[in-house]
Amino acid sequence: MNFGTVAILGPGLIGGSLALALAERGLADKLVIYARKDTSFPAIRTKLPQTELTLDVHEAVRNADIVVLCVPIEAMSDLVKKFVGSLKPTALVTDVGSVKGSVEKEVAPLLKGRALWIGSHPMAGSEMSGFSSARANLFHEAIVILTPPNWEKNEAFNRASEFWAQLGAQVRWIDPEYHDLAIAEISHLPHFLASLLIYRLTDVARQIAGANLPYSPEVALAFAGSGFRDTTRVASGSPELWTEILWANREALAMHLGSLMQILSNLREGVFRNSNEEQAKKELFQMLKIAQDRRTQLLNNSFVS
Amino acid sequence: MNFGTVAILGPGLIGGSLALALAERGLADKLVIYARKDTSFPAIRTKLPQTELTLDVHEAVRNADIVVLCVPIEAMSDLVKKFVGSLKPTALVTDVGSVKGSVEKEVAPLLKGRALWIGSHPMAGSEMSGFSSARANLFHEAIVILTPPNWEKNEAFNRASEFWAQLGAQVRWIDPEYHDLAIAEISHLPHFLASLLIYRLTDVARQIAGANLPYSPEVALAFAGSGFRDTTRVASGSPELWTEILWANREALAMHLGSLMQILSNLREGVFRNSNEEQAKKELFQMLKIAQDRRTQLLNNSFVS
Repeated sequence: MNFGTVAILGPGLIGGSLALALAERGLADKLVIYARKDTSFPAIRTKLPQTELTLDVHEAVRNADIVVLCVPIEAMSDLVKKFVGSLKPTALVTDVGSVKGSVEKEVAPLLKGRALWIGSHPMAGSEMSGFSSARANLFHEAIVILTPPNWEKNEAFNRASEFWAQLGAQVRWIDPEYHDLAIAEISHLPHFLASLLIYRLTDVARQIAGANLPYSPEVALAFAGSGFRDTTRVASGSPELWTEILWANREALAMHLGSLMQILSNLREGVFRNSNEEQAKKELFQMLKIAQDRRTQLLNNSFVS
Repeated sequence: MNFGTVAILGPGLIGGSLALALAERGLADKLVIYARKDTSFPAIRTKLPQTELTLDVHEAVRNADIVVLCVPIEAMSDLVKKFVGSLKPTALVTDVGSVKGSVEKEVAPLLKGRALWIGSHPMAGSEMSGFSSARANLFHEAIVILTPPNWEKNEAFNRASEFWAQLGAQVRWIDPEYHDLAIAEISHLPHFLASLLIYRLTDVARQIAGANLPYSPEVALAFAGSGFRDTTRVASGSPELWTEILWANREALAMHLGSLMQILSNLREGVFRNSNEEQAKKELFQMLKIAQDRRTQLLNNSFVS
């Protein structure tokens, strides 16, 4: 399998890993990497000496069969406007953004009739960022979600599907709007809460200090075990990157946050302010039990499409 | 180092691991295990043929130099009342309960003048339970918190400290009341939220279904990556066990829950309902940034006492 000339726009963690993976697997005749600044070029040259590096986005896409947008979501449409005139009409353009509703609305119309387009969301990455963190196996067994509007599989879908599959990913698909709801639930809200669990330590300490107890975040954190470390792992992600991700999907996230606050409020009444102890414990148990069961199903992959 | 005769009351995950660890490290002259029922005795006999097994708690503690309460928190004081008359006056009694304020109030007075007492909380365990999940290295590098009232180190403290250190644990200490506040913050609230994140999937699906979208927990879970799996790992813990743990510490947990809801509500206003976009993003970034910094400190152990 060979995808011809592949242009990667933005050599960060995802774009860089993509370049390394394509090179290692011999999936491209030619790799072109575009960046806004050349700061990462020496490091890329060392690892990928065959790759063409350019600061000119027109040059990058001119002969490309596949163009992958690996720039921040809010920079995508401006970049596409800039290079769309230089695309081959047979080119496939896709992206790696973690929010898809807005990308679909802004990018798809720009490319209509000019090239093929489909949104991609590789659920891969780490707490690290930048080309220095890139690795060739990043997509191996990762989930990549394609977002064909109304679940309609067209030529763009088929080519992108093959592209990610050759990189070792498990490809799934969903309409862009549903994508954002589901991702807010399964990734953005958990990230928000994980960060909050650490962020609030300061606040709690201040409150309790008001009660004249020598309590501090240090007191609590000294006891943190593997549970706390795992629960909050994602909070080590780049605040710059995650501000953009959460902000781009703020509508869906706010919806889930509202529903979470409602459930928290119900549980506070039903469990912690319930004068009937037996009933209160039963409600607490029910919540924990349903969660355990559902997580077992998750680990058994019984939900996987 | 040898601790003489050690009686373990309750051969579950923690008690069983304790027995295996003491045997493997040759830290006891004699091991006695008491259980309410003999269902686990055949399995224990296979792994620990030298150990004395009994259904009579008097017999278990009669010659013990160290007695470790490994029964559920709510069963502790009744059990202590039962065996206290059979203790040697030089015996050290400790426990492995994850909540300490109530244990201190209920157990300490029963033992006063009859034996030495100090509360212990080994921060070890897993999603598994029962002797079949026990393993000799459970306490290796685990944190064990001792709870001397007013941080006062007495003879009981010194002996218990040596005991856990010989099992490979890192020993820390705190007053019992502070312990419960800190643990609610660092363990119980994170557990509660991890369970909630999975539990609410059903509820969210119902709400969105009300909006006539074919959305289901399966849709969201199909996209769950390693972030969601890590964030919710602890939710696979035994619902029976965790109902008891969370219920025993419900006062401290409710306090933290209230503070969390307040912060969520502030962030909803400041980030998601803020008409000033720049300010809203700045507030979101601040939260993520503080969380990331604090987590880095946590991983670097700079908070460890």
